[in-house]
Amino acid sequence: MGENKDMMEKIISLSKRRGFIYQGSEIYGGLGGTWDYGPLGIELRNNIKKDWWKRFVQNKADVYGVDASILMNAKVWEATGHVSHFSDPMVECDKCKKRFREDMVDGDKCPECKKGKLGDAKEFNMMFKTSVGAVEDSSSVSYLRPETAQGIFVNFKNIQDSFRPTLPFGMAQIGKAFRNEITPRDFIFRVREFEQMEIEYFVRKENWEDYFEYWRKECGDWVNSIGINMNKVHEIDVKGDELAHYSKKTIDFEYEYPFGQKELFGLAYRTNFDLTNHKLEYTDLDTGNKTVPHVIEPSFGIERLVLAILLDAYTEEEVAGDTRVVMKFEKHMAPVQVTVLPLMKKDGMAELAHKVFDDLKERFVCQYDITGSIGKRYRRQDEIGTPYCITVDHDSLEGNTVTLRDRDTMEQVRVKIKDLEEYLEDKFK
Amino acid sequence: MGENKDMMEKIISLSKRRGFIYQGSEIYGGLGGTWDYGPLGIELRNNIKKDWWKRFVQNKADVYGVDASILMNAKVWEATGHVSHFSDPMVECDKCKKRFREDMVDGDKCPECKKGKLGDAKEFNMMFKTSVGAVEDSSSVSYLRPETAQGIFVNFKNIQDSFRPTLPFGMAQIGKAFRNEITPRDFIFRVREFEQMEIEYFVRKENWEDYFEYWRKECGDWVNSIGINMNKVHEIDVKGDELAHYSKKTIDFEYEYPFGQKELFGLAYRTNFDLTNHKLEYTDLDTGNKTVPHVIEPSFGIERLVLAILLDAYTEEEVAGDTRVVMKFEKHMAPVQVTVLPLMKKDGMAELAHKVFDDLKERFVCQYDITGSIGKRYRRQDEIGTPYCITVDHDSLEGNTVTLRDRDTMEQVRVKIKDLEEYLEDKFK
Repeated sequence: MGENKDMMEKIISLSKRRGFIYQGSEIYGGLGGTWDYGPLGIELRNNIKKDWWKRFVQNKADVYGVDASILMNAKVWEATGHVSHFSDPMVECDKCKKRFREDMVDGDKCPECKKGKLGDAKEFNMMFKTSVGAVEDSSSVSYLRPETAQGIFVNFKNIQDSFRPTLPFGMAQIGKAFRNEITPRDFIFRVREFEQMEIEYFVRKENWEDYFEYWRKECGDWVNSIGINMNKVHEIDVKGDELAHYSKKTIDFEYEYPFGQKELFGLAYRTNFDLTNHKLEYTDLDTGNKTVPHVIEPSFGIERLVLAILLDAYTEEEVAGDTRVVMKFEKHMAPVQVTVLPLMKKDGMAELAHKVFDDLKERFVCQYDITGSIGKRYRRQDEIGTPYCITVDHDSLEGNTVTLRDRDTMEQVRVKIKDLEEYLEDKFK
Repeated sequence: MGENKDMMEKIISLSKRRGFIYQGSEIYGGLGGTWDYGPLGIELRNNIKKDWWKRFVQNKADVYGVDASILMNAKVWEATGHVSHFSDPMVECDKCKKRFREDMVDGDKCPECKKGKLGDAKEFNMMFKTSVGAVEDSSSVSYLRPETAQGIFVNFKNIQDSFRPTLPFGMAQIGKAFRNEITPRDFIFRVREFEQMEIEYFVRKENWEDYFEYWRKECGDWVNSIGINMNKVHEIDVKGDELAHYSKKTIDFEYEYPFGQKELFGLAYRTNFDLTNHKLEYTDLDTGNKTVPHVIEPSFGIERLVLAILLDAYTEEEVAGDTRVVMKFEKHMAPVQVTVLPLMKKDGMAELAHKVFDDLKERFVCQYDITGSIGKRYRRQDEIGTPYCITVDHDSLEGNTVTLRDRDTMEQVRVKIKDLEEYLEDKFK
């Protein structure tokens, strides 16, 4: 456990130091369960989102993307049961009035003030409530969506009307969701504001098992491709009481985080529960027959993928008696693809390096770094996982060549400036 | 005015019919000022965001991206003055209790119930309020951010610590913001949930004018490049009372929408107002001198850009006595780049078309369409602005060639299937 705690501390520290992830509202003492993404964190997030969207939406002729509002009519959440049932049982201290999740306390004494007694458990709704419009009455109540899935279902009819798809087909969304977690914890694992990537794949009841299997494989292949170690991912077939009331089969894909084996993403057969709630149906355009399709739902949380990728990329190596920290991201996930470094500020090296940066920036995500010794700069680039560093030195000024350094092997080769783009294109293929 | 009203109706109707934009929570009667984006709308939005991020963040060595939480510590909004001052004056009816924006009513009689009298104006805060954590007391109050700018400022110190940039440098963010507008209107122009793209560019006080001019030009060039008719864009130098209290100079870039000339985007010199509010400063690493940098802020709302692009792309042409509706998007903004159409479902044309789709999908955003006559399908693709349609016909099966149709000229050429990728690469350059 000591080693595991160490590992989380290393990741949190590197994330802050290098500009991946910062505590939300930090200069005002923070706000529990919120995190801000720095320049590198946002590129990593965007790479995940872009890759997912390309693979599961743009490349699939039968999947339709949507992007619904975070604020929805409260009737949506009444229909789904979220207003009445999306809650955790909470107990309150009769002295200090603090509340605790029932399953997180042991005994009936208050763990906070140590004096009061904890009362009976009451349901505490996890949706953030707000009021829309000028009048604060019940008709103006709205909620921040606790999941993106319902933003998909409520647009089911719109997609049918605009695109007339035939079953099976899917709808997909990437977007923020919010849950008023009582005890946010474990860095970006359990947070109050997060981003989901969800697909609702609509099938006929009789062949749900085939599509469940299809998506099980698709999801696993993709998670593997973005740099998550599949030896640490375990499929847990959710059984009995643990199974959500709307699901006939759910697999939790759990990952060995340093703080325990916990959910990375999920795959659920939601039957026709959601469309039935919303009184929606599908009309077969050839036969006129109406049916309420069943649903297979692959559901990812971006923050949990980010955390797993950071953990699996983190590598310490002994180099000449020193420890080198390298983030071995898959190349297409790396926040920065190429960094251009002038060896020194003088003799026109900075200017030439800027020219190289300008030549490459349209095609690659580039950084330009001039601060500190070249050794320190290489180490910094290793720590942010940049696959290739280009150094402009004395020879560059005369011979129009640069040094290209490989992140993983640390090998350096000389490349002609005019060949750089093609050389790198090949490396990133 | 009739023609202008027509134009908005045409855009709203096409948006819904073809899957660009739907009313939010439509099946539950909607929620005022919220809109959901369909498959085409989201691709258009993403193209705008991607292009902006590439140009203003990734391609600029001195601009740092951030992505802050929507939920922030309430102290942020106390420090900025939003809690006390971000409000509209409202009047309330003494009979029906409805509230109205003071500047939207004429006289002291209620425009709703026609019976009551309107009282004195009171300030109504436009931030959405919510409560974070288990206890609903004042310490748990939070707001949905009404602008992304403050998410940038509160990370000013983090960026300094992680990247040690030298002045001038910028920070940029794309993200949602929320305002409890009393009277949302004009389709996606005035909404309650929207997405901003903002840059805070930090400069020394003495040369703010140079950078203001730099960003004025940069913003104009970019807006022109995404397909907005600059003849309809007018620079309004905001003067006197209209100028925000924190700004010494602001230009509103207004666009000739059908409902009037209104703001498209803005450029403001915010002085050092924000960093001073947050008690933040910049330390020069060479000299150790401390200063509070001044700020130039280019600020875009994605929805307003989407609307202007839709309006400028919309074209009606007479073709053989019929009206052809074409969305003449710039090619890099088009939601779908290439659509593959089998002429008929039989004789293996559908299979070959699928193969062509699969060959091209990695490189281009493709659609596959098999529903209806070929003429109808071309019209549908014109209406969504697809630059190129590829038709697989009888000759394709024997000669391995397809028909490639140009959206704007409607010209058709035969291209060998094996040459398609290179041919299209060239067209999209």
